[in-house]
Amino acid sequence: MPPPERARPADGLRDSVLGRDLSFLLVRANALTLAAANAALAEHGLKARSYSVLALAADDTRPTQRELAEFLRLDPSQVVALIDDLEKRGLVERRTDPADRRANVLVATDEGRELFARAQSSAHAVELGLLAAVTPEDHARLAQLLRLLAFPE
Amino acid sequence: MPPPERARPADGLRDSVLGRDLSFLLVRANALTLAAANAALAEHGLKARSYSVLALAADDTRPTQRELAEFLRLDPSQVVALIDDLEKRGLVERRTDPADRRANVLVATDEGRELFARAQSSAHAVELGLLAAVTPEDHARLAQLLRLLAFPE
Repeated sequence: MPPPERARPADGLRDSVLGRDLSFLLVRANALTLAAANAALAEHGLKARSYSVLALAADDTRPTQRELAEFLRLDPSQVVALIDDLEKRGLVERRTDPADRRANVLVATDEGRELFARAQSSAHAVELGLLAAVTPEDHARLAQLLRLLAFPE
Repeated sequence: MPPPERARPADGLRDSVLGRDLSFLLVRANALTLAAANAALAEHGLKARSYSVLALAADDTRPTQRELAEFLRLDPSQVVALIDDLEKRGLVERRTDPADRRANVLVATDEGRELFARAQSSAHAVELGLLAAVTPEDHARLAQLLRLLAFPE
């Protein structure tokens, strides 16, 4: 005999106080989006974190490891490991900062830039898929509101 | 002699391709919001994860451990550890599900409900602080858009 049908479907949780809590919605939206991004980036040998490091290296912002750690909200040791992996694969290089010879800045190689361009296409396709139910205006609005939370004054 | 002033401030990273990427904005908004929530919940002996479990226990949705794990996007072993901790503190109880005697559901004790109410006030105050620059209409819009990402069909 199958177990009786559950009287409390997932809808109950979704409509709970927590299911309407902005912080929790951020946690869950982030978890699902990261899972989708990691799946899409796997074909390029990347995950969301290594993709982020490669993106900043390819963007000519020439960040130091410390700036990367702060911006990505990671421990410096995590950033070092991510850079080591990308460097071994010939995708990024550490260079001495001309403005401060005690600091290293990160730059992407030509191969790194090419891989980033391909990975970015995959990541954007995933993002559009996740936001299929959202108008372009609301997509832009969502990004604008998230920026207020991501970069407080 | 102090090092020369950095020619690449954090603004460069913020205005980079990654700084406008929705997935990355979610990661960073989530990290900052979680850090603020954890700081506010500490006075109640909670963190965001234990607060979430307590919230669902206090909400009379009577979830099983499996439903909690799925909803919170955690491993079942993590959920068991969170429930164990809350149960030892007398805040929640595992009860046999009347609809399926093989399953346990989670309910909050009176003490758990009281603690949750106090913790919820702290969490909401933090959320309003983080969204001080956002109108109530945009706050509601943000929650609505995040729900589309958090609970895709």
